[in-house]
Amino acid sequence: MTQPGSANRKPTVFFLFLAGVLIAFLFLSVIFTFSSSNSLPALSRLRSTDACNCNGNNPPRFNLGFDPPVLTFYDDPSFGYTFAKPIKNWDKKRREWLMLHPSFASGSEDRIFLVTGSQSLPCQNPKGDHFLLRFYRNKVDYSRIHGYDIFYNNVLLDPKMVGCWAKLSAVRAAMLAHPEAEWTWWIDEDAVFTDMDFKVPLERYKDQNFVVHGWPREVYEEKNWLGLNAGSFLIRNCQWSLDFLDAWADMGPQSKNHEKWRKILLTTFKHGADDQTALAYLLVKEREDQLRSKVHIEIGYYLEGYWLVIKDTLKNITDKYVDIEKGDKKLRRRHAELVSEKYAKVWEPHLKDAGYGYGSWRRPFVTHFAGCQPCNGKINPSFSRESCWEAMDKVLNYADNQVLRNYGFTHPDLSDPSVVSPL
Amino acid sequence: MTQPGSANRKPTVFFLFLAGVLIAFLFLSVIFTFSSSNSLPALSRLRSTDACNCNGNNPPRFNLGFDPPVLTFYDDPSFGYTFAKPIKNWDKKRREWLMLHPSFASGSEDRIFLVTGSQSLPCQNPKGDHFLLRFYRNKVDYSRIHGYDIFYNNVLLDPKMVGCWAKLSAVRAAMLAHPEAEWTWWIDEDAVFTDMDFKVPLERYKDQNFVVHGWPREVYEEKNWLGLNAGSFLIRNCQWSLDFLDAWADMGPQSKNHEKWRKILLTTFKHGADDQTALAYLLVKEREDQLRSKVHIEIGYYLEGYWLVIKDTLKNITDKYVDIEKGDKKLRRRHAELVSEKYAKVWEPHLKDAGYGYGSWRRPFVTHFAGCQPCNGKINPSFSRESCWEAMDKVLNYADNQVLRNYGFTHPDLSDPSVVSPL
Repeated sequence: MTQPGSANRKPTVFFLFLAGVLIAFLFLSVIFTFSSSNSLPALSRLRSTDACNCNGNNPPRFNLGFDPPVLTFYDDPSFGYTFAKPIKNWDKKRREWLMLHPSFASGSEDRIFLVTGSQSLPCQNPKGDHFLLRFYRNKVDYSRIHGYDIFYNNVLLDPKMVGCWAKLSAVRAAMLAHPEAEWTWWIDEDAVFTDMDFKVPLERYKDQNFVVHGWPREVYEEKNWLGLNAGSFLIRNCQWSLDFLDAWADMGPQSKNHEKWRKILLTTFKHGADDQTALAYLLVKEREDQLRSKVHIEIGYYLEGYWLVIKDTLKNITDKYVDIEKGDKKLRRRHAELVSEKYAKVWEPHLKDAGYGYGSWRRPFVTHFAGCQPCNGKINPSFSRESCWEAMDKVLNYADNQVLRNYGFTHPDLSDPSVVSPL
Repeated sequence: MTQPGSANRKPTVFFLFLAGVLIAFLFLSVIFTFSSSNSLPALSRLRSTDACNCNGNNPPRFNLGFDPPVLTFYDDPSFGYTFAKPIKNWDKKRREWLMLHPSFASGSEDRIFLVTGSQSLPCQNPKGDHFLLRFYRNKVDYSRIHGYDIFYNNVLLDPKMVGCWAKLSAVRAAMLAHPEAEWTWWIDEDAVFTDMDFKVPLERYKDQNFVVHGWPREVYEEKNWLGLNAGSFLIRNCQWSLDFLDAWADMGPQSKNHEKWRKILLTTFKHGADDQTALAYLLVKEREDQLRSKVHIEIGYYLEGYWLVIKDTLKNITDKYVDIEKGDKKLRRRHAELVSEKYAKVWEPHLKDAGYGYGSWRRPFVTHFAGCQPCNGKINPSFSRESCWEAMDKVLNYADNQVLRNYGFTHPDLSDPSVVSPL
């Protein structure tokens, strides 16, 4: 005979059991949710670069096959690549494009797009095109090592913006065709990268939009048109820069204001209206108009170095580097070409006393054959053609040795481009 | 007074409660573990490309500053870049290097590294270097659009491997300097990319290691040294290929076996021991030695197309493309240069009846000025120099128009490289 109340006790026990299950369930669910929220990032976080990281902070490769069917500035019928079609709100337009193309947005702030070029037709100078080819090869080598893209312009995009003025149209078109690049770097046909390791210290220019090599005092005080060199400059891909290019182009030979500017430039700089004098003038005006902070005249390293000064320093510099290399086997380590940047970092501590630019024993960054005019032959009468050719061979081979070592070879004699020997 | 046995009942109830908690705990833990194993990938999976994905399957960008202090084949003192230093176990060595460099490993199976080049010294032919510069520019444009790297070799890495033999040394050195690239593509100095959209269909060659354009029957049956063209070939970065290059180089002018091979080639192909005849011979031997499956003579599209046949088809092809473009505004959409591959895909359905190569109305992929010899001037007597220059201008401008449109311009007249107008 069951005890009175035992029928009541069974349901109570059962409910207690259920209560235990429930409490455990609640407890673990809280833990589960907490863990899940850490292991399944919200969709918004997935869009961030974090989700694309690999090897720590490595952004994704460009997705070349992705262009969403969403309207951008390219779809605006009034958009154009020429100076005849001014652009407004470029910062916003570019930013929107980047948001729609996350694989390009990621890391874009350090991205440089190189532009160089020369005339359309064969050089008047014998051997001119031969040197242009080698100069271009050098730039492509530098770009490859640092993962930059490069474009060679060999047409007058504006038929009246002739000679050195042609670069303005090329730079502008490049900025619009390459919204993924924060900086466009114009570099003359006759400039050579002579330090394959060095990179433009972009962090130095975080508040600026235009960087050119020169001597501030020469430009701002002496009003010397040779106080800077328009053969190598960086320009940020932004509205300010488009406006700057408009102002610069306004002084060009195609402009209705050309004559007016010619007189002003002659008065201010005692020199005619070429692109460089016009640039110097713009910089002087920038300084006066409180926009000076957007332009930087870089004196600290050879963003553009004069070949005549550099050519005889190369032997000493090479000797120094060879000495240093003997003392640290990490510097002699062979490696895939595309990890060269790692070894550039290994070199840096060894170069802390090297200095930069003139008077230093650091490799010159860019060596520019200003005045040699290898293509059109209008050489500066101070030099002989032979001295130019000779120096070009030497400098190009000096640069080439830094590339060729990745392929196991070297030019033993810098004056002879045709002979190499295995390292 | 408590019931007899009630003191026993309280512990039982408590244990039942605990049992409920335990069961619930076990149940939820199973679920939790299952879910966790899907949301927190094992470390081994993190190393896969999945963890680097962004925008769906987008691998990480190259980490140019990463080279771990772990021994690789580069550190082996016996390693060298020349034919004098044969290499064994290359597949394993390369695989190990890739494992140590995951940002390069990811996507490496489709990666192509282009190599081209010319002689070290100025061209004997007037305008020769001018055309070499434009040919090179064209290749850099193609590489930029498709994210390939390119190297221009202008030295004899082996002083006796002269003329066309020089490419073998360059290709070998490139393979070793670029372990991240699955394929190396040699392309002659006088070849032009005339379809900027087309990409080599690598999936076609998943079981092969060497691809060259030609006509199988001409090579294998007719023993015709012109049955293929060594001006454009792809070679996989593997041990088989290094062995293949060794065998090919063994027939070269620097080889002690050169005279022996010269006689064999003369007998088999009625032609002397140049690199192309040697290659044809190797292919014939491959077929006989049951390794035929590793070589593919591509007849299906213009991996290398003859300029004389192509030059007069360009107008019709252009008309066809313009017609198609008029009918689909997506094809006319402006875009950043680096998303051109997206529009190549949009084009494909419109080209499904175009065919490929000879007789098709598809843009020819590569147009090769075989016989024109723009640099050394040893032109095939069937052509005049003027007909070559004229055709080169036309073909180069035809290709350039496909690039320039990304910058907003076009050559209205294919015979004039100097004039462009805004689109």
